[in-house]
Amino acid sequence: MLSRSALLVQQLSTVNSRRNLSIKQLHDIKPIIKRNLAWFSNQPGKETFGGRLKRRLKNVFVVTVAGLGTFYAYRAYNRYKWFHEMSDSDKTLGTKQRIVVLGTGWGAVPLLKHIDTNKYEVICVSPRNYFLMTPLLPSVSVGTVETRTVIESVRSLIGPRIKYIEAHCVNIDPKAKLITCNTDGDSNVSRGDDVKAILSISKREGGASSRIIKDSARTRPQFDMKYDILVVAVGSENNTFNTPGVEEHAHFLKELLDARRIRSAISDAFESAMTPTQTVEEKKRLLHFVVVGGGPTGVEFAAELADLVREDLQHYFPRLVANDVKITLIEALDHVLSMMDKKISDYTERHFRRENIEVLMNTFVKEVKQREVVVQYKGSTELKSIPCSMVVWATGIKARPLTNKIREIIGLNIQSNRMGLLTDRYLRVKGVDDGSIFAIGDCATIQPAKLADRIQALFEEADTQNRGALDLQQFRTLVEKKVAEYPQLEVFSKKIEDAFAEADKDKSGYLTLSTLRSILEKADQKIRALPATAQVASQEGRYVAKLLNQLSNVHSTDFQQQNLTPFQYKHMGSLAYVGGDEAVLDFTGSKPLLDYFDLKPLSGRSAVYLWKSFYFTEMFTGRTKTLLAFDWVRTHIFGRDISRY
Amino acid sequence: MLSRSALLVQQLSTVNSRRNLSIKQLHDIKPIIKRNLAWFSNQPGKETFGGRLKRRLKNVFVVTVAGLGTFYAYRAYNRYKWFHEMSDSDKTLGTKQRIVVLGTGWGAVPLLKHIDTNKYEVICVSPRNYFLMTPLLPSVSVGTVETRTVIESVRSLIGPRIKYIEAHCVNIDPKAKLITCNTDGDSNVSRGDDVKAILSISKREGGASSRIIKDSARTRPQFDMKYDILVVAVGSENNTFNTPGVEEHAHFLKELLDARRIRSAISDAFESAMTPTQTVEEKKRLLHFVVVGGGPTGVEFAAELADLVREDLQHYFPRLVANDVKITLIEALDHVLSMMDKKISDYTERHFRRENIEVLMNTFVKEVKQREVVVQYKGSTELKSIPCSMVVWATGIKARPLTNKIREIIGLNIQSNRMGLLTDRYLRVKGVDDGSIFAIGDCATIQPAKLADRIQALFEEADTQNRGALDLQQFRTLVEKKVAEYPQLEVFSKKIEDAFAEADKDKSGYLTLSTLRSILEKADQKIRALPATAQVASQEGRYVAKLLNQLSNVHSTDFQQQNLTPFQYKHMGSLAYVGGDEAVLDFTGSKPLLDYFDLKPLSGRSAVYLWKSFYFTEMFTGRTKTLLAFDWVRTHIFGRDISRY
Repeated sequence: MLSRSALLVQQLSTVNSRRNLSIKQLHDIKPIIKRNLAWFSNQPGKETFGGRLKRRLKNVFVVTVAGLGTFYAYRAYNRYKWFHEMSDSDKTLGTKQRIVVLGTGWGAVPLLKHIDTNKYEVICVSPRNYFLMTPLLPSVSVGTVETRTVIESVRSLIGPRIKYIEAHCVNIDPKAKLITCNTDGDSNVSRGDDVKAILSISKREGGASSRIIKDSARTRPQFDMKYDILVVAVGSENNTFNTPGVEEHAHFLKELLDARRIRSAISDAFESAMTPTQTVEEKKRLLHFVVVGGGPTGVEFAAELADLVREDLQHYFPRLVANDVKITLIEALDHVLSMMDKKISDYTERHFRRENIEVLMNTFVKEVKQREVVVQYKGSTELKSIPCSMVVWATGIKARPLTNKIREIIGLNIQSNRMGLLTDRYLRVKGVDDGSIFAIGDCATIQPAKLADRIQALFEEADTQNRGALDLQQFRTLVEKKVAEYPQLEVFSKKIEDAFAEADKDKSGYLTLSTLRSILEKADQKIRALPATAQVASQEGRYVAKLLNQLSNVHSTDFQQQNLTPFQYKHMGSLAYVGGDEAVLDFTGSKPLLDYFDLKPLSGRSAVYLWKSFYFTEMFTGRTKTLLAFDWVRTHIFGRDISRY
Repeated sequence: MLSRSALLVQQLSTVNSRRNLSIKQLHDIKPIIKRNLAWFSNQPGKETFGGRLKRRLKNVFVVTVAGLGTFYAYRAYNRYKWFHEMSDSDKTLGTKQRIVVLGTGWGAVPLLKHIDTNKYEVICVSPRNYFLMTPLLPSVSVGTVETRTVIESVRSLIGPRIKYIEAHCVNIDPKAKLITCNTDGDSNVSRGDDVKAILSISKREGGASSRIIKDSARTRPQFDMKYDILVVAVGSENNTFNTPGVEEHAHFLKELLDARRIRSAISDAFESAMTPTQTVEEKKRLLHFVVVGGGPTGVEFAAELADLVREDLQHYFPRLVANDVKITLIEALDHVLSMMDKKISDYTERHFRRENIEVLMNTFVKEVKQREVVVQYKGSTELKSIPCSMVVWATGIKARPLTNKIREIIGLNIQSNRMGLLTDRYLRVKGVDDGSIFAIGDCATIQPAKLADRIQALFEEADTQNRGALDLQQFRTLVEKKVAEYPQLEVFSKKIEDAFAEADKDKSGYLTLSTLRSILEKADQKIRALPATAQVASQEGRYVAKLLNQLSNVHSTDFQQQNLTPFQYKHMGSLAYVGGDEAVLDFTGSKPLLDYFDLKPLSGRSAVYLWKSFYFTEMFTGRTKTLLAFDWVRTHIFGRDISRY
């Protein structure tokens, strides 16, 4: 091989040494190259079996060596780059504006990935040192997907130029631009038998540490940190709606440890039912699983549980599955997946009936006890007790203590929304004068600008001819010009003539101030808070990163002057897995897709491939993508593991 | 394709229809088959690129369809067989002798896999519903291998013909042949704030459940179970040697949850050290990891930890790794891996110095405190305090409460060994008259038969000519005949002339009773209890299964009469991973291998492949084999995950 390539080089250099290459000379090179290329490709003439095998083995060997070489070279380069950038960012410490981001969830991570680290010094502070792919938690809770598949270390996600500190932020001083962190007051806890204190910490942390007995060695001193810009992306907590017994006896499904506990509890229930001397009644109770909440989390968990029972547990416990297992989904409204299209709710309910999942609609859970749930049907005053084993509580969210603390610090008269921090349309927290605090994700709500508040100004601006009335053209201009600022105007965008005709009751062809008011108030009523979804948080995170990257002057608070566009949410559709290799997708309201294809709500087996490919592409890194694909194949071939630990 | 095969069938049936097939007619068929086969193989003549691609795609398609078809057919058949066998074994309930096996570890599982279920009704009782591949725990504790890779559900391991019940055996009645199980007295525990009681249960269970807060729904009533034969394979507990503070502040490395906790604690230590305002001293303390015990577990854990630090943590915490991380291994003897060859100990110590693992030899741990260990050097009376973060305690084992309870029930005068249940050479527990209880694994010790006790009888038997003295030939016969019963005679087997000459001090060519006594007493001194390893337990498990399968009459206790051979341990060598892709293997004393190859202690990179392939083949199922291979590749490509949950 060496001699051949040496020959090629020699031949080419001979040709080249003539200096003046004419077209004719190029023709001289062609056959040389062709002859040499022929050596790499198929040999002419008849090939023996041994010859072909040899050639193929050689090819495999060359490809393997080249592949491994590329892989190790790429890794070595990446490591070098990583260290280089890390020391680089250490050198510039203190010379740039500092952004502190609280959180490592769906809002914070997209922000951290898109922020310009050449422009800012960025520090991320969060008690959870990994990003969690929350939509896959129902899969994790039954073992379809493993725990480490759905998490990625935040340090590897955000790269070497951003600092991460594992700490709880407990206080904020917006005047001094200072946050105070004290990871869990560990230094105040006397160790030894004071197990309760440790347990309460672990509870407060949302179960962020499994080392309840043995985390004796850590110290986490309190510290303060200055910021120039603070981004609050701390997410939300489970909302029990003050239902008694939920904290003590129900499982949540929000963090990774919840999923682990549920998986363990399912296995525990079956092993308990297999204990000799159990009565039939007790077996039925032990194998009755109750899911409270018919949103995507509750529906997906019930679906995954039904899959686990049918595909794996039936194998090991055929009698129990045939006679005693029962899954019940309790929903307070009259439909599951009520945020989706009606067709999808109906489909899911029909599908659940086929999967033997009982759905109790219009049912309120009044109390969760150790071995039962107490429910009340709508319109009835009677309380009914349902004996059951595991209760999974997936109803809703509420603001975290830190969010409420920030609201109090700013003033509850301004921060009047109990669900989270009110922000303007640039996601800046209301009531912070210098605009230095942003809030994104579940802990934030954009305060809607009401058209009715500025009706006079809007009318005057639109009435270009000062005739005290607007014609259709002027109304259209008004809507088009203001839709960015007032997203509620979107309801008119497609049927502006109809809206105009409806408002113009006397058929004069003009709108007066009062008829305009009536039509705009109707639009104001359509204002809804953005849903607390990963999709919203992720778009908000990207938006704030882009906004901060564009910002010419951090201290100027007039963003309109700087030609910065306010945040606009683009709905891409909702989807949920409903079990038995079927999924439902709802593209209603997702403009980008609806404009190109006329997509209606999708359901069934085709949807599950869309569901899978969506989550596959959503996984942040090559590592998690590989693990997810492997997990799906593994579950398909080997089934789910039922070991309890 | 259809027409072609139709043609083939037609042609063949034409030939066949002639009824009387002669040799000549067979010749007629040959070219037809050949021609049709040619269609499947390579086409003659020159092949175009498109033609070849088409052919190859077709091949890929055919292979894929055939492969998937085989896979699904095989799975469907397996499922059918599983249910069939399960209902089959249900039908024969109560008609066969019942064997109850306590445990799901290295002793119990090989027994359960080899027992003849046609002959016995077999029930397995254990609080842990999975088999744990204990030698891989050090790998799990740093994330080289994931948790679910090293466990396999016991239900899937033992198959449909053996019943498994998840329960704690708490008492045994050898007279009534009855065991009492009460899983964890849960029914006695009042729930609610009684967190301490629950915690103490979880502690007692060896951390078998992670659901400390939320396992409110289970019930595990007490039950009794009759047995005909009982096999005790409950294993052992960690031995703290009454060192103060170990239970409270040190990590063990024996169960899966220990490994999980350690992994979490390592990450926790690094995150703590990254907290601002930590002093240099405190950083050094937080990153000082101490391993107590220089046996295989301690050495492998230290090695894996060093790998984790060098390969992954260095990437994320370059400064901490360069300045502050320290790993110390504390060993009470003057060598690590003291049960292995001296060369291997030396090699490991040299290797650990290169890996920056400090080894403190001749050092005793007197106390473990919250943030330090107190040690004492051999020959010194001074106590020294070493500040440290995590302490991993891997020193030794002791008997479980159930083992001690059985010893008490039988009588401590017979069961005088504190390490476990004394058995005879058929592994039957001493002091049980009907021989109905066997003990295997870590909880059992074979009571050695001492030659000195029967010296008179042995001498008389060997002295065939009644001359009051033995010549070399008679001594040789004695050794060969009795080596099965008295394994300690093996020390003579290779150099019997030397032993004879040494004992025969007056060179008379004969041994008298007193010289024979002196030589046999020397042999008795060589008796050692079998090590508490997976290898021993596994061989004992297989042995008992084989024994019970051969047994013609369960109630006859004279096994010698039934020509049953006593248990003999075959040492296959020991091995340990020492980090940096190096392992050590010691084949000393492993006869089968030493006889064929002259294998010396192995160490270094070649050994690691042997180490890996050994564990790969040891994995019980295709599932765990696949997962282990995947984990190794994943760690190599993506590194270990440092998320803490």
